[in-house]
Amino acid sequence: MTNPIKNDLLLRALRGELVERPPVWMMRQAGRYLPDFRALRTTHSFFERCRTPELAAEITVMPVRQIGVDAAILFSDILVVPLAMGMEVEMHEGRGPLLPQPVRTVADFERIRVPDVCEELRYVTDAIAASRDLLRSDVPLIGFAGAPWTLLCYMVEGHGAKSFDLAREWCAREPGLAHRLLRMITDTTIAYLRAQADAGVDCVQIFDSWAGLLGPSDFRIFAQPYLIEITQALRDHVPVILFARGAWHALPDLAASGAHALGLDWNIESSFARAHAGPCVTLQSNFDPAHLFAPLPEIERRTRAMIDAFGVQRYIVNLGHGILPTTPVDHARAFVDCVKIFQS
Amino acid sequence: MTNPIKNDLLLRALRGELVERPPVWMMRQAGRYLPDFRALRTTHSFFERCRTPELAAEITVMPVRQIGVDAAILFSDILVVPLAMGMEVEMHEGRGPLLPQPVRTVADFERIRVPDVCEELRYVTDAIAASRDLLRSDVPLIGFAGAPWTLLCYMVEGHGAKSFDLAREWCAREPGLAHRLLRMITDTTIAYLRAQADAGVDCVQIFDSWAGLLGPSDFRIFAQPYLIEITQALRDHVPVILFARGAWHALPDLAASGAHALGLDWNIESSFARAHAGPCVTLQSNFDPAHLFAPLPEIERRTRAMIDAFGVQRYIVNLGHGILPTTPVDHARAFVDCVKIFQS
Repeated sequence: MTNPIKNDLLLRALRGELVERPPVWMMRQAGRYLPDFRALRTTHSFFERCRTPELAAEITVMPVRQIGVDAAILFSDILVVPLAMGMEVEMHEGRGPLLPQPVRTVADFERIRVPDVCEELRYVTDAIAASRDLLRSDVPLIGFAGAPWTLLCYMVEGHGAKSFDLAREWCAREPGLAHRLLRMITDTTIAYLRAQADAGVDCVQIFDSWAGLLGPSDFRIFAQPYLIEITQALRDHVPVILFARGAWHALPDLAASGAHALGLDWNIESSFARAHAGPCVTLQSNFDPAHLFAPLPEIERRTRAMIDAFGVQRYIVNLGHGILPTTPVDHARAFVDCVKIFQS
Repeated sequence: MTNPIKNDLLLRALRGELVERPPVWMMRQAGRYLPDFRALRTTHSFFERCRTPELAAEITVMPVRQIGVDAAILFSDILVVPLAMGMEVEMHEGRGPLLPQPVRTVADFERIRVPDVCEELRYVTDAIAASRDLLRSDVPLIGFAGAPWTLLCYMVEGHGAKSFDLAREWCAREPGLAHRLLRMITDTTIAYLRAQADAGVDCVQIFDSWAGLLGPSDFRIFAQPYLIEITQALRDHVPVILFARGAWHALPDLAASGAHALGLDWNIESSFARAHAGPCVTLQSNFDPAHLFAPLPEIERRTRAMIDAFGVQRYIVNLGHGILPTTPVDHARAFVDCVKIFQS
């Protein structure tokens, strides 16, 4: 981190410093809605793209150059962690991930381990270095990992699912094994995010995409303690954004976790979020990705209304979840442009 | 409705009258976790079961006789409404519904209509009559329909989905068409639920299973007005239970709708629910179906804790969503038994 970052809006917003306008980036911004990304997909498989630092870096930088977002997020996948832990992970385009040997019995634990992440996930830290080279300190680079609960969902269910019933049933039947698995994922994730910070990411986001499948008491048992542990272990190294999708009930606890920012899904209104998260944490949110299909003037009207509601300070503009693959590129650009000319 | 109902706990809870213990039933209680239901499935297709009044009645009564719930809910499906409106609906066991010609363009509206429900859905009212015969006034019979928003999801997307992105994109692009479709579904649903009431159901539940996919402002545009209109049109004929899954932010508005009860998913804690719904509406909720996989003493402990938290009066014990197909029958029975011996 030799050169200062030219556009440091995101980092200032995360530190709670004054900004002239809120920064904007989009979850899954380096993804399928970009024609150049789709072109790469025809020649390189998913893990080839993740594991080839030059390719990952090229994809990482695409939305900065083509859409003009205020931050890059590393192109990778949350499932590189189960992969490094010893699980087989297959990616099938259009059908999502498959983990053919899920973890369910005591015997299944013999196949997984807390890995040496510097060794097993060197391709990620190499991709970070390559991305930094391409970014030339123009904007910050965001690292990320899946939250333990969300990774457990895939590792136990064995594939994506609407409500991960198998994983949730398993936690009810085998809470001891669930905590054993969450412990291993947490230890791996702390080492992994520290390695990302050492390699030069400017902040990290933790994705608990399936937090909303847990009721409040289960969230406090199976998700929250591990999220807080990871946050505590990282926050003095690098700013932390926690995104616990669907866990609207946990905002006060997550705000007290030491995270620099909380990501919000589009079910949470600004007044509720600020009232429950308090004034001392940055909020990142929460444009409904489906609204990017509205006519351009409507996108601009809604974006301005969202910033008016959340306020310019301690706020990061984002979507409430990943951008949808069929989003028109000019609509994504209109969303970003509208933030960049925002005047309160 | 000649004979008084012997076990009228559910109806008393809906009217806000004093009960000695809360009533209990389970969403999807007449379903795949019951061996006798699975046996019927091998010999009769889905719509054959729905459309043969004797079969539907036999399935409706199964959980009353085998599990001992305090109410029967008619065996049917929310997709009989799109079917009656002129759409093709295929049910594929294990893969969910398929509507091969979804509604997306103005031209698609030529294929659908507000039907004469007394004619098109006579098999449902016949199934209600047959169920009443078998129930012999032992417990109340619950009728139901899908909410307009939830039916729109299937009619536009064409199949089940994790987040119904196509349907949500369509609403952003074509709000005028969306309201035209919601209008037609609403008119059909009001006539349909009135026909159910005339045929003798003792109360009705409206399932807005996908309400949680809408942010609060979209919920107020695409879901809530139609839910309230249906409730207002029905409430003087028959008690109404509104279940808008995931719409935790709308509890105050839904409580003011005139519905007799609000169904809650397992993300909502009792204190939040009562504070936001107020004291004048019955709450129905919200045991996590995954918790039925816990050991029996744990199921009993959690069930008692839930009733302690919600209170005995103005409360109906249920799951937070449908019972899972692999639930052990004795676990479902333990849940029900625990409510029946509850003493505060």
